[in-house]
Amino acid sequence: MELEARLNATQPGSVRPGGRTAKVRAAVLEATGEALADNGFHALNLDRIAAAAGVGKTTVYRRWGSAVGLVTDLLRDMAEQSLPASDTGSLEGDLRANARLVLDTLTDPRMGPLFRAVIAAAACDEECADALRGFYATRLSEWAPVAERGLARGELPAGTDPLEVVRAVSAPLYYRFAVSREPLTPDTAERAASAALAAAEAGAYVV
Amino acid sequence: MELEARLNATQPGSVRPGGRTAKVRAAVLEATGEALADNGFHALNLDRIAAAAGVGKTTVYRRWGSAVGLVTDLLRDMAEQSLPASDTGSLEGDLRANARLVLDTLTDPRMGPLFRAVIAAAACDEECADALRGFYATRLSEWAPVAERGLARGELPAGTDPLEVVRAVSAPLYYRFAVSREPLTPDTAERAASAALAAAEAGAYVV
Repeated sequence: MELEARLNATQPGSVRPGGRTAKVRAAVLEATGEALADNGFHALNLDRIAAAAGVGKTTVYRRWGSAVGLVTDLLRDMAEQSLPASDTGSLEGDLRANARLVLDTLTDPRMGPLFRAVIAAAACDEECADALRGFYATRLSEWAPVAERGLARGELPAGTDPLEVVRAVSAPLYYRFAVSREPLTPDTAERAASAALAAAEAGAYVV
Repeated sequence: MELEARLNATQPGSVRPGGRTAKVRAAVLEATGEALADNGFHALNLDRIAAAAGVGKTTVYRRWGSAVGLVTDLLRDMAEQSLPASDTGSLEGDLRANARLVLDTLTDPRMGPLFRAVIAAAACDEECADALRGFYATRLSEWAPVAERGLARGELPAGTDPLEVVRAVSAPLYYRFAVSREPLTPDTAERAASAALAAAEAGAYVV
């Protein structure tokens, strides 16, 4: 029976084991992202998520349990949905691409409010904070090879911490976005990349 | 009568015009800071603030109106309570002092949770965001002279934006504190100062 299920799973149009579960999760997390972007963490309501996702309330309560459960699962899902980091052939090109990606995300009319909401959720709840930490740990490690390749090409001093170089690109953009609440412009992104590169070249991230 | 009031105000032990108002404000804002640090923005309750401050509910509702009113007034008050920026004689010394001050604030058992709460409040409410923007504008402009003196001493390339140098010290610390939720250590602060200095010396903040 198990074997048959596995065989069926490979045939087009068949119902994979877990197929419905995966669809329910996708619908619920999409509704969660929309609700967070629209109304923030504190307005997150499981009944409304169930309705928006077209899923039974019982399923949502049993599987996610709370607003915190929805946010942490959304952050896990966001971490999994990664695009490959740039490989332009130069550290400068890759850091500029990274800065533009962060800028585009934070200034996107849907993603900006969503990131604001998950940062606020993490400020209010330790489980959300752990999930946010996990999300950025994944993102930073995906972009670390950019600095590792720069090191291998001799563009950075030996002993440079690749993660610190990647953090340095993001930090000025997120500082304006979440803390000082100042505008983000293409100039901000260019300067973030240039400053990270200059500091890294000067050995500021040698550990 | 007005003259008499002004004369009385200069005598020790006399009741200044506005003296009671100022005391009420101090008590209410202290209670607000405590409540934010303990339970965050969404648990802020005007009745409880009035009780904790020993002030009538009517006064608190009339004067502050809402949790947002309390947070924005607290941020105004925090902006006014500034310490003079360092003047160690070198840009490096001043940037290190600034990085340590930010580190000490964010890792302080009372101030850390308070800053987390106002950042979350700003993520949820535009009035709070405006007040937070005003708070950091004040703080940044207080520390800008550090970079201006560095410029005057020839430690930085002509045309360097002093505010960008000061933002660069704060950004990596706040990024870990509010976004990637990674630990803050004295090393983090040292590296933030060194990186800001290296990038500034390389001309990354010339505008």
